[in-house]
Amino acid sequence: MIRFECDYAEGCHPAILEALAQTNLEQTVGYGLDDHCEHARQLIRKACAAPEAGVHFLVGGTQANATVISACLKPYQGAIAAQTGHINVHETGAIEALGHKVLPLPSDDGKITAEQIMACCRAHYNDATHEHMVQPGMVYISQPTENGTLYTKAELNAIRLACTQYSLRLFIDGARCGYGLVAPGNDVTLADLARISDVFYIGGTKVGALFGEAVVITSEALNHDFRYYIKRHGGMLAKGRLLGIQFETLMSENRYEQIAAHGVELAWELRRAFEECGVRLLYDSPTNQQFPILRTEELSKLQKKYAFSFWQQMGEGWAAVRVCTSWATDAQAVRNLIQDVHDVCRR
Amino acid sequence: MIRFECDYAEGCHPAILEALAQTNLEQTVGYGLDDHCEHARQLIRKACAAPEAGVHFLVGGTQANATVISACLKPYQGAIAAQTGHINVHETGAIEALGHKVLPLPSDDGKITAEQIMACCRAHYNDATHEHMVQPGMVYISQPTENGTLYTKAELNAIRLACTQYSLRLFIDGARCGYGLVAPGNDVTLADLARISDVFYIGGTKVGALFGEAVVITSEALNHDFRYYIKRHGGMLAKGRLLGIQFETLMSENRYEQIAAHGVELAWELRRAFEECGVRLLYDSPTNQQFPILRTEELSKLQKKYAFSFWQQMGEGWAAVRVCTSWATDAQAVRNLIQDVHDVCRR
Amino acid sequence: MIRFECDYAEGCHPAILEALAQTNLEQTVGYGLDDHCEHARQLIRKACAAPEAGVHFLVGGTQANATVISACLKPYQGAIAAQTGHINVHETGAIEALGHKVLPLPSDDGKITAEQIMACCRAHYNDATHEHMVQPGMVYISQPTENGTLYTKAELNAIRLACTQYSLRLFIDGARCGYGLVAPGNDVTLADLARISDVFYIGGTKVGALFGEAVVITSEALNHDFRYYIKRHGGMLAKGRLLGIQFETLMSENRYEQIAAHGVELAWELRRAFEECGVRLLYDSPTNQQFPILRTEELSKLQKKYAFSFWQQMGEGWAAVRVCTSWATDAQAVRNLIQDVHDVCRR
Amino acid sequence: MIRFECDYAEGCHPAILEALAQTNLEQTVGYGLDDHCEHARQLIRKACAAPEAGVHFLVGGTQANATVISACLKPYQGAIAAQTGHINVHETGAIEALGHKVLPLPSDDGKITAEQIMACCRAHYNDATHEHMVQPGMVYISQPTENGTLYTKAELNAIRLACTQYSLRLFIDGARCGYGLVAPGNDVTLADLARISDVFYIGGTKVGALFGEAVVITSEALNHDFRYYIKRHGGMLAKGRLLGIQFETLMSENRYEQIAAHGVELAWELRRAFEECGVRLLYDSPTNQQFPILRTEELSKLQKKYAFSFWQQMGEGWAAVRVCTSWATDAQAVRNLIQDVHDVCRR
Repeated sequence: MIRFECDYAEGCHPAILEALAQTNLEQTVGYGLDDHCEHARQLIRKACAAPEAGVHFLVGGTQANATVISACLKPYQGAIAAQTGHINVHETGAIEALGHKVLPLPSDDGKITAEQIMACCRAHYNDATHEHMVQPGMVYISQPTENGTLYTKAELNAIRLACTQYSLRLFIDGARCGYGLVAPGNDVTLADLARISDVFYIGGTKVGALFGEAVVITSEALNHDFRYYIKRHGGMLAKGRLLGIQFETLMSENRYEQIAAHGVELAWELRRAFEECGVRLLYDSPTNQQFPILRTEELSKLQKKYAFSFWQQMGEGWAAVRVCTSWATDAQAVRNLIQDVHDVCRR
Repeated sequence: MIRFECDYAEGCHPAILEALAQTNLEQTVGYGLDDHCEHARQLIRKACAAPEAGVHFLVGGTQANATVISACLKPYQGAIAAQTGHINVHETGAIEALGHKVLPLPSDDGKITAEQIMACCRAHYNDATHEHMVQPGMVYISQPTENGTLYTKAELNAIRLACTQYSLRLFIDGARCGYGLVAPGNDVTLADLARISDVFYIGGTKVGALFGEAVVITSEALNHDFRYYIKRHGGMLAKGRLLGIQFETLMSENRYEQIAAHGVELAWELRRAFEECGVRLLYDSPTNQQFPILRTEELSKLQKKYAFSFWQQMGEGWAAVRVCTSWATDAQAVRNLIQDVHDVCRR
Repeated sequence: MIRFECDYAEGCHPAILEALAQTNLEQTVGYGLDDHCEHARQLIRKACAAPEAGVHFLVGGTQANATVISACLKPYQGAIAAQTGHINVHETGAIEALGHKVLPLPSDDGKITAEQIMACCRAHYNDATHEHMVQPGMVYISQPTENGTLYTKAELNAIRLACTQYSLRLFIDGARCGYGLVAPGNDVTLADLARISDVFYIGGTKVGALFGEAVVITSEALNHDFRYYIKRHGGMLAKGRLLGIQFETLMSENRYEQIAAHGVELAWELRRAFEECGVRLLYDSPTNQQFPILRTEELSKLQKKYAFSFWQQMGEGWAAVRVCTSWATDAQAVRNLIQDVHDVCRR
Repeated sequence: MIRFECDYAEGCHPAILEALAQTNLEQTVGYGLDDHCEHARQLIRKACAAPEAGVHFLVGGTQANATVISACLKPYQGAIAAQTGHINVHETGAIEALGHKVLPLPSDDGKITAEQIMACCRAHYNDATHEHMVQPGMVYISQPTENGTLYTKAELNAIRLACTQYSLRLFIDGARCGYGLVAPGNDVTLADLARISDVFYIGGTKVGALFGEAVVITSEALNHDFRYYIKRHGGMLAKGRLLGIQFETLMSENRYEQIAAHGVELAWELRRAFEECGVRLLYDSPTNQQFPILRTEELSKLQKKYAFSFWQQMGEGWAAVRVCTSWATDAQAVRNLIQDVHDVCRR
């Protein structure tokens, strides 16, 4: 079985394993205060052109989302998000567990617009009983989105303006950040993300690390006492150096973008193959996730050799699946899949 | 600087690094459902003589404590603990963050007794206004305790009886479990911990793993839907296999106890050195943490070469520090420290 | 200004004031354990044909909803509700404050169906990653709904079946219970509500009391320790007798239904007037809330003399408003409004 | 049975019942935005010499405490309180339910000192691992305390200084505020409470109202959006006017202090009687709660006619009980009790 169902099926980039082995018996202080973490912070600040940013390393995405959102909001505030957003769907209520409502906006492709955000805030403040409703306190978006799509720089700038107008924090979930940075047509850099958001993260788990997300905070107020939040939510790794060492490695020698590019190139090979075969794609994704719509019987045949993630039923006899590539995807496996798609899915 | 301030200053046992390297490009399903996790579960169930136990792998101790306690308690219930217990002192309110009060009992050496627990429950239920107070719903103890001390099997059995009498769950924090198992005089086995508690964990972070705690649940009701809790609290590691691989390695070839024994032996060398020099120890600890009481000027001299954890002021001119050994402690470093203790601390 | 904007603009039924005056200097124990509360409980159990039911008196609706939902759910579970449900919209995140997500289902008229509930549960359990999502743990409905509509007994029975099938608790918000019981066409009695739900409440605040909701719990497991929940959420009134005295009065001499009938009759006078004038009603409400759709200029004229609640914009130049009657509504005021509607709204 | 066990055994001052009756059919807007509430706010601002203060009316003390504390603290912060403080003991974890730890300080008489507060904060910030501990964010004290004792103005000023030094909010629970204001020896006025604290409340429930606490907020930042907090915690009374009308009545014609004085005078009659009989008092309380230490057999005799609150066992054969007077206490009942004390307790 060749796995295309997610981008975390393998371990990590070999350079990380090497770095872990080389540093294994070093003695360091705990909890992210060691030199490796400090070095990784410097590399990230430089990559983000944000020399004053706070940088904090967390183990996983749900933990990062919950911790950041808890720090962003007052108790009576909620987080505006696409209804498809990870925090609204796939975190078993981790945000609600900390007392906050997700305020979902309709979305077809995983993106929301500045206009939607402003309309949501206007509706709140124009309602005479707004104190009876959860106040919008922040915006949560993902870049790339859960559907593989990307915001343009213009779209992000517009969202930033909307946030500023309504005193909302802007948080960008970058679990797949790398695959967005290198996607064809992308015009958003790490420096843009740092400049536009109050806080975002550079995802490691899905882009070459064993685990880890680097949270970059450009709002000084938000950065203040942030480590208390990390500890409160069980996110302060005793051997914090493990995160430092991993991000040192990823952020050196342009490795983060390079290995992401490998995943995206293979995703585009797949995308073109689906298109050649007349297979419709559910979203127009330029990143490492592709969402072909297949006949049930086509799916059955392909699933004998390949694992995909079921995405959604598309009426009788059709389903969309998610096909993921990653930094670790074997090029030959992709070519085999392409061959099989051609054999099975010709329309 | 030689670090004796904690038992998580180094990376991991080399066998774990090897196993990670060997399995690095395997493709596995995520979230702890892979074969390595399953194999590790089998090894743990066997070691615990608990063939039906649920076994769940979490990244760290605070996360494990919060997740387990959330699953054990009803909203209006609290967790009885020693006032020195980790959940009462060193988790930035992670338990309260999930809505629960810690009900602290006085303790000198980190242990609490069955009598204290029963008195606490009697006081609650005998009070006519007990509905105005947090109901005791569970007992949290650590084995070894935060002060290095150990419960005897008889003490644990008595606590179990008290818990049963008052319908309390019993949860044993085993962050340093290994160092207890192999301590001179210890009469409590993994099978005892599994039999006596409703849930306990086998700590990996401080006993040879990069990170990880193996939560063992013998109460079927508690195990039901436990994975929802893990996800809700940000503890479901995407590449769950990392935890599986580490515990496979630790629980094979008697490795867990063997490497813990190394730490405990060196701790006893230190303990004997302190005693020979007439240095009083704050607690009578048979495990890998020792708590000598030193003169300020002695401390200053030793701290030029060695890092300890400050523990508490002991009146003018004296302080207790924590000196930790671990699976990774260098025997020569211990001998050097002993020599320096002899030189500096002669009374 | 004559107020039709809500059903809590006045104080209370005079019989309640009298009872309060008569009992004012009686000495009673606090917190709902006095004889008035006990007597009120007996009257309610009898009215509900539920001799074993737990009955608890809370001050207000949001408090009742939050307390009941906290008692119904495990931490990782959420409450299915109409997206228009009070808990989803108008409680400033009181449910999320206690850690629970509201799982909203689309609804036009404020009602949801057994089919929707079952589809929601099937979708959850059929998803391979359901542990990453909030588990449906209960259903919250309002009778009458926030839109004035009513469930039939058949609809409620079907919802009950769906709940039983998927192990969901069923909670019925009866803030306006009285106005439903006496509505033309209603076939649901208090005994039905008690039999069909696990817990529901008989609203006092909007039906003649100064304040107060009587929560009726037929599930013994849910009733156990419920008073701890009340106290935990700040809902245990020191002078609990105030609630007992009010419900004693309301539940005696058929007063509750009688005074509700007054409100509903006047609502129907209004409804018929709107219909005669060709004014469309947003919902087909048989209860004390009516939702006429008016031209902006009509509204401006009427609002010089009458207060309504703005409900929603209905395209350019039109708006729906809520017009409420109650136990306290002055019949003459209604007739005046009817006259003005005839004058202003002729189509 | 004559009840001396609490100060909320009766209804309310007759003037309140009258005011409720007179205003009963007035139509007002809901949720505390009506003219009665506004008038009461003005009276309170004047009494407190705090013309800019926010004034909010809540139904009960636990609700007021939880709401205020939630507004005062960041998620990772806790509330310093006497270990005997109401929030630490008698609120079923209402503070923890909102995510906050109570940080208890030892206290014999219900009071804590500025020195204790500063020591607590120093201990926190001096600890190298303070991010692993709950940060002190506020101080909660009661005036009078749960034990009937009073802070002097000098003590409160010192606590204020300590709070300012460590950026702590100061919250004064005034559930029995009135009984303190009029106590012999008291030198603290309402204006002092307003000036010294960031937020305090004037208790109505125990001082003549049916229910209600008037929260006075002098910190503008804290007052901002406070109504969202009230709604979120189920404390926004639909018929808010009920609170306005009660506080209008209490704060007019010096009624609040007058009726409190009645209670305190009777308490002192009791106190003197106990002292004359050689009965030791557990606390030196100048307010409406007295805590005599009685022989078990004395208690048995007295309890045939009088209800007290059991307070604590005082060794074999002795117990302390709480004896409360209030605005409603019957002078003749007190004299009867005094006679019986003289008969039963002569030493």
